[in-house]
Order: sequence, then C-alpha cells, then structure tokens
Amino acid sequence: MLPPKSDFSEWYHEIIQQAQIMDIRYPVKGLYVWFPFGFKLRNLIYGKLRDVMDREHDEVYFPALIPETELGKEGEHIKGFEDEVYWITHGGLDELDVKLALRPTSETAMYPMFRLWIRSHADLPLKVYQIVNVFRYETKHTRPLIRLREITSFKEAHTAHRSYEEAEENVRKAVDAYKDFFDSLAVPYFIIKRPEWDKFPGADYTIAFDTVMPDGKTLQIGTVHHLADNFARTFDIKYETPAGDHAFVHQTCYGISERCVASVISIHGDDLGLILPFHLAPHQAVVIPILYKGREKEVLDLSNEVFFRLREMGVRTILDDSDERPGAKYYRWELFGVPLRIEIGPREAESGEVVISFRDERMKRKIPADEITEEKVVEWAEEMQERLRRRAIDSMLEKVKFFESADEMEEWMGRGIALFHLCNSLKCGEKIEETVRAGVLGEIIEMPEEIKVERAGKCIVCGSNGKLNAMAKSY
Amino acid sequence: MLPPKSDFSEWYHEIIQQAQIMDIRYPVKGLYVWFPFGFKLRNLIYGKLRDVMDREHDEVYFPALIPETELGKEGEHIKGFEDEVYWITHGGLDELDVKLALRPTSETAMYPMFRLWIRSHADLPLKVYQIVNVFRYETKHTRPLIRLREITSFKEAHTAHRSYEEAEENVRKAVDAYKDFFDSLAVPYFIIKRPEWDKFPGADYTIAFDTVMPDGKTLQIGTVHHLADNFARTFDIKYETPAGDHAFVHQTCYGISERCVASVISIHGDDLGLILPFHLAPHQAVVIPILYKGREKEVLDLSNEVFFRLREMGVRTILDDSDERPGAKYYRWELFGVPLRIEIGPREAESGEVVISFRDERMKRKIPADEITEEKVVEWAEEMQERLRRRAIDSMLEKVKFFESADEMEEWMGRGIALFHLCNSLKCGEKIEETVRAGVLGEIIEMPEEIKVERAGKCIVCGSNGKLNAMAKSY
Repeated sequence: MLPPKSDFSEWYHEIIQQAQIMDIRYPVKGLYVWFPFGFKLRNLIYGKLRDVMDREHDEVYFPALIPETELGKEGEHIKGFEDEVYWITHGGLDELDVKLALRPTSETAMYPMFRLWIRSHADLPLKVYQIVNVFRYETKHTRPLIRLREITSFKEAHTAHRSYEEAEENVRKAVDAYKDFFDSLAVPYFIIKRPEWDKFPGADYTIAFDTVMPDGKTLQIGTVHHLADNFARTFDIKYETPAGDHAFVHQTCYGISERCVASVISIHGDDLGLILPFHLAPHQAVVIPILYKGREKEVLDLSNEVFFRLREMGVRTILDDSDERPGAKYYRWELFGVPLRIEIGPREAESGEVVISFRDERMKRKIPADEITEEKVVEWAEEMQERLRRRAIDSMLEKVKFFESADEMEEWMGRGIALFHLCNSLKCGEKIEETVRAGVLGEIIEMPEEIKVERAGKCIVCGSNGKLNAMAKSY
Repeated sequence: MLPPKSDFSEWYHEIIQQAQIMDIRYPVKGLYVWFPFGFKLRNLIYGKLRDVMDREHDEVYFPALIPETELGKEGEHIKGFEDEVYWITHGGLDELDVKLALRPTSETAMYPMFRLWIRSHADLPLKVYQIVNVFRYETKHTRPLIRLREITSFKEAHTAHRSYEEAEENVRKAVDAYKDFFDSLAVPYFIIKRPEWDKFPGADYTIAFDTVMPDGKTLQIGTVHHLADNFARTFDIKYETPAGDHAFVHQTCYGISERCVASVISIHGDDLGLILPFHLAPHQAVVIPILYKGREKEVLDLSNEVFFRLREMGVRTILDDSDERPGAKYYRWELFGVPLRIEIGPREAESGEVVISFRDERMKRKIPADEITEEKVVEWAEEMQERLRRRAIDSMLEKVKFFESADEMEEWMGRGIALFHLCNSLKCGEKIEETVRAGVLGEIIEMPEEIKVERAGKCIVCGSNGKLNAMAKSY
C-alpha cells in the first residue's frame, strides 16, 4: 500500500520503490539503481527526447573525465561548480599528475574540441548533444531522480553560432523543442528567465522550465543557457567569417535530466500508483481473464484473441492469466500505471463484449471485442493524453496565487508558486527574498494560458515599473 | 589519403580520425571523443547487440561509483583490478570518508543488490544487462576503441541461477548470443577457454571470443565467465529452494566493449577506407548525379526519384548533389564505407538505367532504375554480407598456422595465431610461453570450419595427451 499522495514526500519515497522505478538501497548516499521497469520507462521517455533532439542535432560522446586545468579555465564557471565536483586523485596506487574531475556538466570537456572542430563560417551552426552520466557532490538531502550524486541520464546539448543573435534564435528553438517534449509528457510548466544572480555559471542568461510539484514546491526540469562569447573567449573558439576576418562564436547549451521522469511520476500519479501517458507506458494494456470453474476455455480463448490482436498492433500488452484474485491483479497493474485494462469473464466471452477501463478514469465501459481496432486505440490514447493534461493543469492552478503585497507570501511558500511584479533589480530581489525567505525564480516568459495575471505592474518592493515574476520553495 | 592497410597500425590510427569515428585530440591520454558519424555507427552496432540481449535479459542501470569497502570484498577480484582503478578521494574540497572507485566492471556494484533482490527460487534465473562507461587506469600504450581509460560503451550482463549446471547452461546461451552478434558483424572469431592462469579475477572459468587483426595480433572482443558461487559466498546471495533450504546462487557474467566497433573497422576496411555491412552503415546508399551543362534537369529528376524511393524503403540514403567533381565524391563516400553507390548521368537519365556498385566489389553494373525494389535491396545486402564474411575468413586463414614443434613459433608471433596441442598444465603452459615469448590464449572450443586441424594430439611440450590450444601476440 502507498501512503496517500497528500503526504507527498512519503508517497514519492514509496512509489519509487514499490512501482520498481529505482532501488534506493545502494550503499552510497545519493546513488540509486534503476530497476528493469523503471529503466524501461526511462528509455521510453528518453526515446521521445532523442526524437526531439535528432531533428536538428548530432549525437556525440565526450569523456567523463575533465582535467583540472580545463575545468578551471572559465572563472565564473569553476566558481559555480568547485564545491560539488568529485576529484579523482589516484590511478591504481599512483597519484595522478593532473587531478581529474568527474564531469558535472560538459562545457569544459567539449569546448577545447570545438576550438579544433570550428574553422570557418561554413562549420556553423554546430549543434550536438549527448545523454550521459554526470556527477555532483551533493551535501543536501538527496532524493531519487531529483537530487543525485550521479545523474545517470543528463541530456546536454551544446551549440555554436556566428553571432549573438543567431545564438539567441537557437535559444528560442531549444525552448520550442523542450515545449514539445514536456507537452508529450503532459507535464505543465512555467518558462522563466532566471534572475541575474541565479543564472548558470558562465552564462549570459538562463531560461528555465519549472513545474509545480504536488506539495507546492517547484521543480526545475529543464534549462536553456545563452553563453554569448564567454566560453569562446576562454577556449579561443574562433571562425573565419565570409569576409576573411576571425570572430568568436556565440554559444548556447541546454539540459534535461531524469527529473523529467520524476515530473511524470509526481504530476500524474495518484493514491493507487503511477498514471502514465499511453505512449510512455512500459505496459500499455493488460488483459485480465476472470476465470470461473468450467468456463475457463471460452474466457481464455477470447482473452488470447484480444491479447494477440493488441500485440500485433504494436501495443505493449500483458496477458495476466496468473492464479491470483482479480483484485490483486487490478491492484498491481494500477500501481504500475498500465493505461488500458481489459477484463474478460464468462459473460463477456459469451456476448463477445469486453469490459475496458482507463487508469486515470477508473470507469468501466463495455465494448464489442471487435471494436478494439488500431484507430480506436490511437483515439483512446489521445483522449487520455488530453485528460491527463487537463488534470495536471487544474491541479497546478490550485498552487498558483498572485500577490500584490509581500505580507502573506511567506505563508504561501511551500504551498505553491507565488506570482508578483518585480522591477528585476538585485536590490528589490534581495529584499523580497529576505522578507519571504524563498528564492525568486525570475521573470515569467510563458505559462499555461489558464492563468490570468497581468504581465506588467508595480514592483512589489519599490513600486516602480515591474514585470511578472515567480517565487517558490524549490527542490 | 590513408596509409595502405598493410601498414596496419598507421592505417588504424588514421582511419579512426579521417572517417570521423573518434577525435583523438582530447587533452587526456586514453580518452577520446566520439564524432557524430562514429557515434551513429556505434549506435547501429549496439542496437544489434541490444536486440540480442533483450531476448532474455532486462536492461538496468547501476551506479558508476563503488565504495572501496564493496570493491575490496572478493579477494581475487580486487587483486585483479587494484592496479587499474581510478579513485575518487574528494568531493569539492572535502575528503571523502570512504574512497569511491570508478567502476572498472560492475560485479561489486550489482551483487550487494542481488542479495536484496533474490529471495526464493522463483526469483531465478535473474538476467540483467547494462551498457555503461567503465574506467581503467591503463599505463600501457592506449588506442581508440581498443585500449582506453574510459570504455564508453561496456555492455555487461550479469545472471544468477539455482545451480552450477544451470549457470553453465547460461554460459552456453551467452556464447550463442555472442555468436549471433559477431556473425551479424561478419567478424570471424575463435571461441577459446582461457587457461586457468588467465581467467577473469574471481571466475571459475572464462571463455573468450578472439578475432585476428590484419597485423596478425589477436583482439579479445568478448568474454563469458562462469562465476560458480564465488561471488555469492562473498556477497551472501542466497535463495530459498523449493524444499525450504537456503542455497547460494551460481552466477555468470559476460561483456562486450567498443572493441566490437574496432573489429568491424579493422577486419573489413581497405586502403580506401571503411567497408561496412549494409545493416550497420550509417549511410547505406549514396546517389551521385553526374551533371553536364544543359542536361542537369533530367539527371536531377531521376536522381531525386531514386533517392526518395530508397528513403521510403527505409534505406539510409544520401543524395550528393554538391558541386564537387564526381571523383571527390566517390573518394569521400568510399572513405565512409557507404555500401551502395548509384551514379546517374545524362546517358542514364535517357535510358532509365543507372550505374550501381558495391563498396566491397567496386565493380559497376547497369540496372533499370525501376528494378531497385525493396526485395532487391534486401538481396544485395545479404549477398554483400556473405561476401564480407568470406573475405574476412579468407584473410583470417592466412594468419592461422598449426605447429608441431615450438621452434618456429616465435617467428610467427606478430604475424598470426599459432595452433598447437597442449596438455593444459600450468607447467607446460609456462614453458611454452617462455620459449615463444607470447601468451597462451587457451583451449579452442570453436573456430571457423574452414580451419582443418585435429582437436586432440600430443602436448607440444611434454608429449602427453593434449588439446588444441592457441597462442598469439594480443592487443
């Protein structure tokens, strides 16, 4: 049994283990093991991400080990990471001449090579990505998929362009690609420009995707950084322009980690277990024969027929003809979030109608077995996707509140995301963070259209012209 | 231009870079960067490997960091790896309480968890695999794909069974799976049981797949280990038998690294570049329009037609309508190993016939464009696969020689693999290794049927009953 989802922290802790996403018993803090079922879900979600990336990027792989000399080159960047880098000091019994960092992210592994790869304007844009493990020495409370010492599945894209404007155009494209991806997960998000004091170390600016978790805290699920020519100057990445001059490239980078899996689990799940969008479910349908003595054959015949029909359509289907009670089977497949359940008993075998229900609705309907066609399944999957999207937005709306004064905001922190106007100055930012004791997420660029709040207004601190900002306790 | 393949070491060094497999300029010894083209080839080869594994294994992911306390538990195992493990001693500026090893292989990461996963006989067999980066502090000469400090793509499978015999049955299945895999690469191999003194640290015995490289040295491209209950005793992995007793599991593990990519490149390539089996080629076909002034339209029309037809069949096809000379285009696509080339000039556009040639034959034939059908492409791919297999075996046969006395064997070392009979005793093994100054690979279990040598005979050292063994200089 799961704890109720209203007790989110406990629920999350338990569902990760009970629904066999990750085993949390590995003997090092912050490191977890992907179970087979969890890894199938991970592969399906990352398959979608890969599709989105493959449209305009080449996949590559850069080494996991970065020499201290490279990692330290960009001043802001190393300052941002030096407290959380794992250092390799020894190979066997030998002390290494140059310490090696386990990549916390790959700018400093990639950009010395970009310097060699980029010669002329014809080499631009350069757009690559990789899906790799990265490492952070987290001293805070760790949590599976959310705060890890080994992020096992970091998708990081890195690009180089001719100018600041072309890089900015790519920031827009990356944001659009991420929107496609999170829309396919039916996970709603705010797109927020991080304040100057909270941008990626070394970036010109940072745009983040934040979702709101069931406990009201926000989870950053994706980031897109405009790097301008900051790293290009450090790593001397120049290209020959059509006119024959040499100019620094402008770069962007953007990442998504297994937090995307955490968001799917957290946003859609309920007291009974996982709820998964149809196209992401490792098991998309389960056929459950209800057996009565003497009537087994006809029930199993129809069950097999439906099972093989679904399989042939490419639907990932299970036939659960084990000896357990139907109730135990329902319980298990609900826990694993199987979207479509089909029950077949003697009455159904006789009439040729079967009982279907969807994991998110839990409403039973009868339909003739013959009507389970490929078109029908596609239609059901789309309807379910839309229901999940709506449900996720409705539940997010309960955790969004607009404030005109800072007084009640502190109480709201930990319950949801606060919207307010801010002049975006460091001074007013610090002031409000101090008053409310939470972090400013930044200026809102895009949010679900259901949220009706003015984009401009008076700064909540100083009263001058302000833009819509967000604040929340965050993971 | 590549050096001739007869100068294998130079050829390999150059083709890795020129055919854009890996960039060897990363600033740490033994670490390389996968270029986009190389990574596509890697993904296609590993896709095949994954298919073979998915038949009977679940994919999982275990952490890359192993605490010193776990890594050191199995005595033989740690002795085998302690000289080549990278140690993480610091997180940020803090010294870690327990040093962490970067996994050199994952027995000691997985088996403490197997202890928790396995309760009853119903949990067995347990068969999982993962494709991960592993690390070795190599002090010898490093080489892309062959001897690395970060093996980026280590496929390791780990299984647990009820008895020694059931584990042994799984060793046979693993060997069969690997045969399927290497056959699909058209890479010929010897299957060899490693001598007692050269088995995997902690194993009961080790079976290896060795291929012979163009320079006559052997390359170990896969290994399968029977672990008996050695690790189960160390990590206390027990199950409840049907009778209610508790017994240790028996285990196997087996691995393949990116050496499989090295073998494809090395075995099939020629002086002009890569030669790739059709199903593994990132670009399977290239259509090259030969343009003459005034006749461009008809040539491009037919070229486009053929290009789109191939694309629709799912053939990964390029239309090279760039401005370069045809010779430059041929040269490039030969370097990248594109299996099928289609040339279309004004004469072809008029007659509706096109000129096709295959990368391995380089013989031109004319066929009507209409005859390029899906069935035809499948047939061509199979014929090419068979030609590559034959060619690879023929070239291997030149590097296999049987010896009845040790006298001439030393001279043969570095030119090929020596077969001879050995009684398999440590004493005679040491003696022959000392005389010939090379390593005994072990007893031959299977080899290409074209090699006609008696399996039993008198030991080359002591004259008593012996089995067919192999010896070679190895990578």
